[in-house]
Amino acid sequence: MAAGRVFEINVDLVKERAKCNFDIREITHILDGGETNTIQRKKIEDATLNDGQSRDVIPEEYLGPKEKYENAVRKSCVYAKISKDELMNMTGLELLGFTSPVFRRIADAYFKEVSPFLLHVGMFIPTIMGQCTPEQQAHWLPRALAFEIAGTYAQTELGHGTFIRGLETTATYDPQTEEFVLHSPTLSSYKWWAGGLGKTMNHCIVVAQLYTKGVCHGVHPFIVQIRDEETHMPLSGIVVGEVGPKMGYNTGDNGFLGFKHYRIPRDNMMMKNAQVLKDGTYVKVARHAKLTYGTMVFVRVMLVNEMAFNLAKAVTIAIRYSAVRRQSQPRPNQPEPQVLDYLTQQHKLFISIATAHALQFTSDWLWKTFTSVLADMRDGKTDTLPELHALSSCLKAICTSDCGTFIEICRFACGGHGYMASSNLPMIYSFVSATRTYEGDYTVLLLQTARFLVKAWEQMEEGKPVTPTLAYLSRASEGVKESWDSSNEGIIRAFQRVAAGKISGCVSCIRHHQKTGKDFEDAWELTTLQLVAAAEAHCRAVICSTYYNETIRLTASSSTNVKAVMEQLCTLYLLYWSLERTGELLRYTSLSENDLFGLQQRYEKLLALIRPNAVGLVDAFDLRDEILNSTLGAYDGRVYERLMEEALKSPLNAEPVNSSFHKYIKPFMQGKL
Amino acid sequence: MAAGRVFEINVDLVKERAKCNFDIREITHILDGGETNTIQRKKIEDATLNDGQSRDVIPEEYLGPKEKYENAVRKSCVYAKISKDELMNMTGLELLGFTSPVFRRIADAYFKEVSPFLLHVGMFIPTIMGQCTPEQQAHWLPRALAFEIAGTYAQTELGHGTFIRGLETTATYDPQTEEFVLHSPTLSSYKWWAGGLGKTMNHCIVVAQLYTKGVCHGVHPFIVQIRDEETHMPLSGIVVGEVGPKMGYNTGDNGFLGFKHYRIPRDNMMMKNAQVLKDGTYVKVARHAKLTYGTMVFVRVMLVNEMAFNLAKAVTIAIRYSAVRRQSQPRPNQPEPQVLDYLTQQHKLFISIATAHALQFTSDWLWKTFTSVLADMRDGKTDTLPELHALSSCLKAICTSDCGTFIEICRFACGGHGYMASSNLPMIYSFVSATRTYEGDYTVLLLQTARFLVKAWEQMEEGKPVTPTLAYLSRASEGVKESWDSSNEGIIRAFQRVAAGKISGCVSCIRHHQKTGKDFEDAWELTTLQLVAAAEAHCRAVICSTYYNETIRLTASSSTNVKAVMEQLCTLYLLYWSLERTGELLRYTSLSENDLFGLQQRYEKLLALIRPNAVGLVDAFDLRDEILNSTLGAYDGRVYERLMEEALKSPLNAEPVNSSFHKYIKPFMQGKL
Repeated sequence: MAAGRVFEINVDLVKERAKCNFDIREITHILDGGETNTIQRKKIEDATLNDGQSRDVIPEEYLGPKEKYENAVRKSCVYAKISKDELMNMTGLELLGFTSPVFRRIADAYFKEVSPFLLHVGMFIPTIMGQCTPEQQAHWLPRALAFEIAGTYAQTELGHGTFIRGLETTATYDPQTEEFVLHSPTLSSYKWWAGGLGKTMNHCIVVAQLYTKGVCHGVHPFIVQIRDEETHMPLSGIVVGEVGPKMGYNTGDNGFLGFKHYRIPRDNMMMKNAQVLKDGTYVKVARHAKLTYGTMVFVRVMLVNEMAFNLAKAVTIAIRYSAVRRQSQPRPNQPEPQVLDYLTQQHKLFISIATAHALQFTSDWLWKTFTSVLADMRDGKTDTLPELHALSSCLKAICTSDCGTFIEICRFACGGHGYMASSNLPMIYSFVSATRTYEGDYTVLLLQTARFLVKAWEQMEEGKPVTPTLAYLSRASEGVKESWDSSNEGIIRAFQRVAAGKISGCVSCIRHHQKTGKDFEDAWELTTLQLVAAAEAHCRAVICSTYYNETIRLTASSSTNVKAVMEQLCTLYLLYWSLERTGELLRYTSLSENDLFGLQQRYEKLLALIRPNAVGLVDAFDLRDEILNSTLGAYDGRVYERLMEEALKSPLNAEPVNSSFHKYIKPFMQGKL
Repeated sequence: MAAGRVFEINVDLVKERAKCNFDIREITHILDGGETNTIQRKKIEDATLNDGQSRDVIPEEYLGPKEKYENAVRKSCVYAKISKDELMNMTGLELLGFTSPVFRRIADAYFKEVSPFLLHVGMFIPTIMGQCTPEQQAHWLPRALAFEIAGTYAQTELGHGTFIRGLETTATYDPQTEEFVLHSPTLSSYKWWAGGLGKTMNHCIVVAQLYTKGVCHGVHPFIVQIRDEETHMPLSGIVVGEVGPKMGYNTGDNGFLGFKHYRIPRDNMMMKNAQVLKDGTYVKVARHAKLTYGTMVFVRVMLVNEMAFNLAKAVTIAIRYSAVRRQSQPRPNQPEPQVLDYLTQQHKLFISIATAHALQFTSDWLWKTFTSVLADMRDGKTDTLPELHALSSCLKAICTSDCGTFIEICRFACGGHGYMASSNLPMIYSFVSATRTYEGDYTVLLLQTARFLVKAWEQMEEGKPVTPTLAYLSRASEGVKESWDSSNEGIIRAFQRVAAGKISGCVSCIRHHQKTGKDFEDAWELTTLQLVAAAEAHCRAVICSTYYNETIRLTASSSTNVKAVMEQLCTLYLLYWSLERTGELLRYTSLSENDLFGLQQRYEKLLALIRPNAVGLVDAFDLRDEILNSTLGAYDGRVYERLMEEALKSPLNAEPVNSSFHKYIKPFMQGKL
């Protein structure tokens, strides 16, 4: 609930909350991963948010871009100071977990967009931990953790994103001075995008093509000081600035960076995986090449979690608003119904509650898998890594895409008011829609997963064992239609059959093209549309089964009503996607017209069953008003009052007549302009 | 091409243009509706844009909201002055056509978002023409056309949108003074949204519940002066202000408006369709009630046209960028391919070229239908109006939705750079995504169309004739699957069969619910998910057949290659939607697994055929750089140069160190904050 003055709660919301048939705290605990976590989270939220420091007196939207940035820097320092102590006490995985739900939630209360410091904790520190030798870590980490230096991560260039091997920035070793010379040979080689690079950070991890003794050894990371620690002036040989306005992240001062033969000490190469000796000899450290996937996988796991959180925000706003908003008059002399009572509205919104659960559970499960893979890797076992990499790739792609889609549906479901910035829905969408692209574009990631799937299919054909998430392949290899079964388990099997059918289809297609004389790469390229579809299908099957299994596991000891509503949501998810993917189910299973009719009926009945618990379900996400930042979604449901209060803060409303009337409008109307 | 300095054109674009196998002017003429129109359009564009007055020295994004508004007012006056003479020379339909392609294109060069004056010409003047008596028109129209007064249109309230009967603002007639008393009884009755209302306009058409002699006669429109013409101060009894920031339209000063027993003369009621006499007697003018649909239909026709235009902008940007951008290295020692060469990229983009054509042709066809319905109405025939209304409803819904979806796909296809404001893609999306909601929400409009479809089905059952767009219903009433036929005509028949099947299914479902004791309205509500789907299917069938028929008609005398590429695009559209709607086609036609395989193959071959003409096809939209406003989409393809040039305009780049370093960052880093 909001700090400060307490208002009466909207009567419709009061009624909705009275209708809810379960203890919302129980679901909150499940979503937090246990009651202890909930208590800990609330403690931190109280400590950081109750004092109201996170609130802006003038909403950020009313500031110009420069003032917006300056305000974000001010809040970043307040926020970083609060979190610094927590940061200093954490190590290893725990520290990686800094960007974990609790701190991310709080950051959202401070920054409607993003903190300029985000990449310091989100990328700079983790990369030092992942790519530096112990000696290098001893040098950089304490200063970074204490915020004595602030750093970001610059990989993408103006002309090069996904294809890292194509980066143009060079780091050429000079054994004379034992330095690397960083250089940007072209405009397209300028680094572009790194958050906080524009004006905030004084250090930067730079990914560049390493040249030594005249040989290029591919891309490697370097730690580069870019600004003077005292004066903050860009150092000589550094061209740095801000990239300008974007669809979102506008307080994040994303930057560009060019080098003019800029020299850094040899030691600034991050040498955990490869070294350049003093004489310029390049030494690859004997280590599984796949280890470098570690950070990428970690970031993707975090992103899935972040998607669940953002969708939870959007659907909390949309459900509460739909309980308050009334519209139309289906029969005379009756009051206008709450829009939440319309089947079409329930259809738009309840899937988002279910999806937020599905992604939360999937991300927790992925995180567990990731930590166990890390443990395996410490024991020298790396054979589980390809599966994890393929999984994290497609999950990142599908989750960011699903969330973007559903957040927009939530926004549209709020009608015109969802278009108001003060609803916060436009900002949530802008934020999430970026994640579809960064850290691996949707299509590229699905094609990576597809590579793994096609390989797995070939292994299965050769009689070799396949990994657990692909065990379903064997069932489908005969090419017969799966017999349709409307149970949850049956639907999951059907989605697995669809995925297997599509993977099989891709293999056939590739071989068909090869038979007509194409080489493998050309055959692959000609199959990419189907390959993307196969990876999508695989991912959907994984989410469905994970969501279902985790729901059963996590509610094993829950009260009857919590168990019931959680299972309803999970079934809703399975039915929703069955109805969305009718074509695929008809192709790969024995699904009949009658079965379809039954699915539609069950789906609509589930909407009706979930309806009375809808507000309780979003309350269970337990998102404070400071975090929701929404006129439509606040706990008290004072929708119209808040819309008007926010409007009155507009600088245009500070004076009855804007100067442009006298300057332009009046002369124009009088024909004098 | 851009005014001013002329740069070298990107070599890849030069090559692409050389590859194009048709005369792009031929397609431009088709899209403009004939060569004469093209010449006229270019003449106006040259006259209004060549002087560079439309360009901002400082891009709007770098201004705060207040400065942004003031700058837009300045440009509005320049723009309005230019267009005023044109306006004065137009009458009737021609004047309605003021917001037609030519002027809208030019407005886009002036306003990245929107002119504060937009609703003066877009709603105020047309409503005076549609809702006033000739005497009232004689009073208001000359002043409005001469811009002596500026007005907007306020219908939506904070608490009431789509359901107009629910509006709360009252207009109570006082026979003593022969005035109406306007009043806002609640906060939720405040008018909300009207463009230009916040600070710009001095008049406003207000829709309010009319009370006279103690009886409410429902909502009626009134012309209300809200500000003093000399001082621009809000008049006493008027509460007016700006609603604050939105996802887009931020230069449009959308406003709120409340009345405190505010009096206007009796004559200010717009009396074409109903009158209140001096003594307070309410007189309904004997006129078909459906006539009031006129303006709504007109606005929707215009919106479909506007969608085509915005999608053309987005895909022009995305295709040109995809020709310049290079990525990956499928085989060693080869240069990185243009991303336009990837099948996945072609799949994302070419459908948008086809859709822009489809919507342009559909909107032109709808406009013709509309004008012929208007002619019918003048002759007293109104029986064609329900069909037109149903058509315009679903077309508005589907076109705004399709365009939003495809514009986002265009944006995502530009990777990270599509997220830059300077690409203009975020703004185009923000703009278009509003149209899904305003002037009739997506779901509400489709349900309106569904009412018409269900009624038509019942008429057909009774043996009555059905309207032309629903002739297909009769073919499907037997309930047998349509025999699949992969020709264009066959695919169109299949989509009609799907629509008929869905409408039939809805009727069965409603009757089923009625048999279980529900009344019609409850049965209807329980069927709304299927009803929305049926209306979607009907609309898709209409677009498919219209696009196909118009393509044949419009290219009848075209050169061979133009005919070929236009037909390829049309077939691409039909195949794209067949593959998207596999489930429906499998349910309602005899489509087999083999047919599906064939469709996929033909679709992919078409992508390859269109590929060499892709840049030519977007060049044929003939969108000047001033109108595209995009670093990625400019005619010369100087993508990276433009991105950097725009970035350098950022106010944050005006000084090497931002003041917030000294104020916050440094003290914080030194532990002194």
